[in-house]
Amino acid sequence: MAAGALSTDNALPVVVTTGEPAGVGPELTLMLAARGKLPENTVAIGDPDMLRQRATALGLNITINVCPPGEHPSGTKGLRVWPVALNAPATPGVLNPANADYVLAMLSLAVDACQKGLASAMVTAPLHKGVIIEGGHPGFTGHTEWLRDACGVDEVVMMLATDAALHAASPSWQGSGDLRVALVTTHLPLRNVADAITFERVTRISRLLEADLQRQFGIAKPRIAVCGLNPHAGEDGHLGREELDIIIPALDALRAEGVDILGPLPADTLFTPRHLASVDAVLAMYHDQGLAVLKYAGFGQAANITLGLPLVRTSVDHGTALDLAGKGVANPGSLNVAIALARRLAAQRLSIKSPD
Amino acid sequence: MAAGALSTDNALPVVVTTGEPAGVGPELTLMLAARGKLPENTVAIGDPDMLRQRATALGLNITINVCPPGEHPSGTKGLRVWPVALNAPATPGVLNPANADYVLAMLSLAVDACQKGLASAMVTAPLHKGVIIEGGHPGFTGHTEWLRDACGVDEVVMMLATDAALHAASPSWQGSGDLRVALVTTHLPLRNVADAITFERVTRISRLLEADLQRQFGIAKPRIAVCGLNPHAGEDGHLGREELDIIIPALDALRAEGVDILGPLPADTLFTPRHLASVDAVLAMYHDQGLAVLKYAGFGQAANITLGLPLVRTSVDHGTALDLAGKGVANPGSLNVAIALARRLAAQRLSIKSPD
Repeated sequence: MAAGALSTDNALPVVVTTGEPAGVGPELTLMLAARGKLPENTVAIGDPDMLRQRATALGLNITINVCPPGEHPSGTKGLRVWPVALNAPATPGVLNPANADYVLAMLSLAVDACQKGLASAMVTAPLHKGVIIEGGHPGFTGHTEWLRDACGVDEVVMMLATDAALHAASPSWQGSGDLRVALVTTHLPLRNVADAITFERVTRISRLLEADLQRQFGIAKPRIAVCGLNPHAGEDGHLGREELDIIIPALDALRAEGVDILGPLPADTLFTPRHLASVDAVLAMYHDQGLAVLKYAGFGQAANITLGLPLVRTSVDHGTALDLAGKGVANPGSLNVAIALARRLAAQRLSIKSPD
Repeated sequence: MAAGALSTDNALPVVVTTGEPAGVGPELTLMLAARGKLPENTVAIGDPDMLRQRATALGLNITINVCPPGEHPSGTKGLRVWPVALNAPATPGVLNPANADYVLAMLSLAVDACQKGLASAMVTAPLHKGVIIEGGHPGFTGHTEWLRDACGVDEVVMMLATDAALHAASPSWQGSGDLRVALVTTHLPLRNVADAITFERVTRISRLLEADLQRQFGIAKPRIAVCGLNPHAGEDGHLGREELDIIIPALDALRAEGVDILGPLPADTLFTPRHLASVDAVLAMYHDQGLAVLKYAGFGQAANITLGLPLVRTSVDHGTALDLAGKGVANPGSLNVAIALARRLAAQRLSIKSPD
């Protein structure tokens, strides 16, 4: 652990990667700092000059305090920053593939700090997949998959949660409209989704979801509702056979192991109070089936959590919003929620690791 | 027009097909009648003996008044019923393919009455697609498609709407959470959806949607937001090419015709206040992409409307709920909304036809 960390508030920092420099990530971080909403032990990662210029352009009166990576001396005013240098100047709204490696270098630094015990959790502002691919990483499909590979695990689960669910002491959905939604598949073209739904995948993802609802959220016996793949969950095979051939057998196998599973249910039946009231999380088969509802319910106050990693990682629930970048009008609500959640999950994990 | 109609309240009846006799349709109709929530000129279609038995079993004190089809004499107490006989006894919760033709006969009677000017609109309680198929109709895919064929039109559009949107004088979404969602594809296995998204289909469905938002809802210049097919609307082709190859060209062609179109947008971005506030309806590419959100928002108070028919047809937003049937615990809210909407759409259509 870095001396800097021990000498300050005795709590490891949460690090925020400020993401695509042409997007809203840098300014959302600066806006939270200017509003006094960043907890004391937060450290941003990014190019200090770019952050200073962005703050000035937006009229935000913030001191950028560059710290050596791994350190977060207390008593400093303003925003503490672990520096990573841009590869090319960044203009709000204008993507530049030359900065793809800059975005990935911030992630590497954050992962490294978490793994070395120099940070308690990482929070990621949005990146732009397309420009990372164009910048020389053709296989790049997103933060979640990159972190899986960087951490050397076989499988992770992408989950989003709305605000109140994040903070609830009793995590069950209580008719408040709050939701946790995890995904069996993530960033796949829709035409490839059906073939990606396998017995193996459904069972593995469900087990990971159950384990991290226990480990990260402290829910002793999570209950999970699972969507079908097809409309009306296939309606007895008349609208697709994946439920009969794959999903139902997978859920039966999970039940035999003791996992508390409801489903498969039609997605447009599952997301109603009758079912949501009894479950701790929903497992959707693919991106838009689960996340359109989650974002509607979350209203800019949701965050993304990667389950299955050896570290705590949360993220905003939105993209780079290039059309808003540099204007100071984007909503930092999701970043605020993501940071709060990261702190809570880190504390929960610590309390489980050290029961004394 | 039937003498009975003219001699009563001078308004044509709205007819309600009570749907699958093993499902909740019959009892939802009876519950609304018992609660005095059926407008005077409502007529149910179904087996009178079954309806009487169901009412008795549920302790509902309702007189079943059998009227000759096409007539709805006023001054009678209780629920007026145009009779169609069951093919086999019906038990709540137990599907019987022998009654498939009974379910379709109710629909035929309702369509016939609307087309002959004996009814102003039809409202359908849920049927069960699987048992209709098993009952000798292998090509059956749902109410919506059956009505399209029965009315001899090439294309219809399935739209669902939540309660307040149905009743709003000003139909724009006003931050209240209310929604109208139409679908490019309906009851297809998910693996067949991508191939069903064609330039032709997107443009035809969008034109039908615009036309019926004008004709049935009285919105002079509707604004429509369109979802992409793939996650993140394909993210510039990195997550699927249908947006670049099909949807964007289709929307450009529609704009060139003067249709007011927003999109394609990622489904999990579109369903947020920033976009919803400016549009009259959302066009989703497939069932679960649009309806999971709609049902979540609607909370049992949404209804289904078929656009593009020569008659007014609305429906509940739920299925047969076999597990609840016969218990009197199902929520008649959606049927209530569907009937109210049918009356409103019928009046709107009449006022456009007869501007004097």
